[in-house]
Amino acid sequence: MQTLWDDRYALRTQNMKGSTIRELLKFTQLPDVISFAGGMPAPDIFPIDEFREACIRVLEENGREALQYGQTEGYLPLREMISRHTNAYGIKVNAENIMITNGSQQALDLIGKIFINPGDRILVESPTYLGALQAWDAYNAQYVAVPSDKDGIQVEHMEHALRTGPKFMYVLPNFQNPTGVTIPLERRIKLVELADRYGVPIIEDDPYGQLRFEGNHLPTLEVLDDQLRGNHECYHGNVIYLSTFSKTLAPGIRLAWVVATPEIIQKLVMAKQGTDLQPNTFAQYVAYEVSRQGFLEKHVKRIVEVYRSRRDVMLDVLESYMPDGVSWTHPEGGLFLWLTLPEGCDTQSMLVKAVEKKVAFVPGHSFHPNGGGMNTMRLNFSYAQPDMIKIGIQRLSETIKEHLK
Amino acid sequence: MQTLWDDRYALRTQNMKGSTIRELLKFTQLPDVISFAGGMPAPDIFPIDEFREACIRVLEENGREALQYGQTEGYLPLREMISRHTNAYGIKVNAENIMITNGSQQALDLIGKIFINPGDRILVESPTYLGALQAWDAYNAQYVAVPSDKDGIQVEHMEHALRTGPKFMYVLPNFQNPTGVTIPLERRIKLVELADRYGVPIIEDDPYGQLRFEGNHLPTLEVLDDQLRGNHECYHGNVIYLSTFSKTLAPGIRLAWVVATPEIIQKLVMAKQGTDLQPNTFAQYVAYEVSRQGFLEKHVKRIVEVYRSRRDVMLDVLESYMPDGVSWTHPEGGLFLWLTLPEGCDTQSMLVKAVEKKVAFVPGHSFHPNGGGMNTMRLNFSYAQPDMIKIGIQRLSETIKEHLK
Repeated sequence: MQTLWDDRYALRTQNMKGSTIRELLKFTQLPDVISFAGGMPAPDIFPIDEFREACIRVLEENGREALQYGQTEGYLPLREMISRHTNAYGIKVNAENIMITNGSQQALDLIGKIFINPGDRILVESPTYLGALQAWDAYNAQYVAVPSDKDGIQVEHMEHALRTGPKFMYVLPNFQNPTGVTIPLERRIKLVELADRYGVPIIEDDPYGQLRFEGNHLPTLEVLDDQLRGNHECYHGNVIYLSTFSKTLAPGIRLAWVVATPEIIQKLVMAKQGTDLQPNTFAQYVAYEVSRQGFLEKHVKRIVEVYRSRRDVMLDVLESYMPDGVSWTHPEGGLFLWLTLPEGCDTQSMLVKAVEKKVAFVPGHSFHPNGGGMNTMRLNFSYAQPDMIKIGIQRLSETIKEHLK
Repeated sequence: MQTLWDDRYALRTQNMKGSTIRELLKFTQLPDVISFAGGMPAPDIFPIDEFREACIRVLEENGREALQYGQTEGYLPLREMISRHTNAYGIKVNAENIMITNGSQQALDLIGKIFINPGDRILVESPTYLGALQAWDAYNAQYVAVPSDKDGIQVEHMEHALRTGPKFMYVLPNFQNPTGVTIPLERRIKLVELADRYGVPIIEDDPYGQLRFEGNHLPTLEVLDDQLRGNHECYHGNVIYLSTFSKTLAPGIRLAWVVATPEIIQKLVMAKQGTDLQPNTFAQYVAYEVSRQGFLEKHVKRIVEVYRSRRDVMLDVLESYMPDGVSWTHPEGGLFLWLTLPEGCDTQSMLVKAVEKKVAFVPGHSFHPNGGGMNTMRLNFSYAQPDMIKIGIQRLSETIKEHLK
């Protein structure tokens, strides 16, 4: 259908692609397909009863406020709760440092909106989170990609990238999406020092940090940057930190947050005001009500148990069924692991065969901003139940074996 | 506090102002201030019981789906319900023509994202909705303003503006924000014809259309554009239509929608994916559950009754207390009316005095994209209860009388 809108799209619209993967993923939702493709939390352990009780209480006690317009920066008690939580991680902030967003995706978009001029370079890990690339493509960003290994971004290859003058760098230090790997302490320190030496600020995206199955919690880049400045009692603001309720409470309520200086928060608030006015008032009241009595800590323990056992099952069956030449990461937490096939394999074309065998994954190529990763794939272990994980990995290994023939 | 982020803001950030009014409005939230400044629905008639019942039912019957990730374009049954509602207005569309957004503000942002190149002209009414200007300022839009009178945009002054080559025009035909005026049928037809003659597509923003207190419902620009093309059974797509649940259900759930061609919807979906992934799943399930059994129609009637009586009270006391030389609009629906003081008055400086007298409004200047309107103000009649409206308008008339001395 021809309309007057046809030739009126903005130039940036040409940059909004990212739909190859979207098109592919449609197949993965066919019935009987065991999908390791999404990034979905396990719905079987959503705290449905607690949500119901919270909804009832919120509507009975604060119905008028919870259904009304609210502040752009978010519901104050929720921001205060998040700042207390952040303080417990060693970062001294208060509610002024916190803004609520519709999932971390919106934080990425608003950061792009206030910081990225067309053509600006962003330093990213390769592979990196696809959603960040989608958010910043719309602002015509370019990417300087630094390769990563089983310990995350290779800091020894960072210096060249830092010398190209990136606007900022974007890192997911814990159980990264897509690889599942975690940056060890020594490398984190080195990374923060390098960023400081070149004067490049950092976006630290940490959606999964609380979902650690084993080993010790590592200090965030934010804490390490503060320590570098000799005072870890004070938040210095060079690191903007992102986290979310999507993986601890539920993604359907679309609540995440940004930690930044009050000045940056004010700019983000201004951008959010023009973007969608405010976060969902009702969802914020309910999330606060569900979380405030210590339930969240308890619930996170339950999630960790369930995901740990699903990861273990996946690692076991991978070990049993995968042919020689295939390797994978061993994540200490989170939702994903990363499979690498022999050079020359093409996981994108393999996906069609896999879906025929009723199993799905995300081809790794999409996570590489400047190409590469054709022989890799991301597997999610949080969504499918253990017996389905077993069957799914068997199907996948058959697909791979046939591909390798 | 100095950080590495300080000199890194994007150029467009300089355009994100719109905060004079925001700063002013902070005063209006002081205790005892009777505020006609906001655009808030009456919280005393929010359907709180229906929301509670809907939350319980949704969580019991569809808890896992309602708390999980969902589709970017929105929850299908909700989109189907909206398309049936749209059909009832005479526009033949289906779910493929509908996308759910976080309030209409997000629709405005996403439209800016996919259509506006820096420097593009947008044809707007003057005064117009401030949120649209805030959304599009971030894309470095420019505005061609066409003055309006008691019948809305003055079509006889439109031709010059249309000849400057605007990307699109933006109009609120029903009970406009901020003026409360409605464009009569004849002028609507003329507007659609002119837009067609110059090949300029239309954004029709209709948040209040259902809240008509008197007179007959008028055909939307969308319907008139279809009729112009000789077939009102078919949606031709030159008019993108926006509406919302904010004024009929509750603004705190942040749910609105766009009606457009499937092609434009797909572009908007791509933009939304990078912006915040998807609308709130839980809020959509709950809104659908609250609305689906015909409750919404009943509830809208109740809102209309309440707002009509509050408008009547406001018109009465304005008539009784306002000094000579002050005039105001007589809205047939919606939430706002518009007050015009004698030339030379400055409502922005008057606001300080008004707040001292414990009453607040929005100075009209802010709604004028290219200046003007210093002697005007917007008054909201939906939020305050009738006795407060009386006292508030008395206080306001005292402020104005002192100012006129």
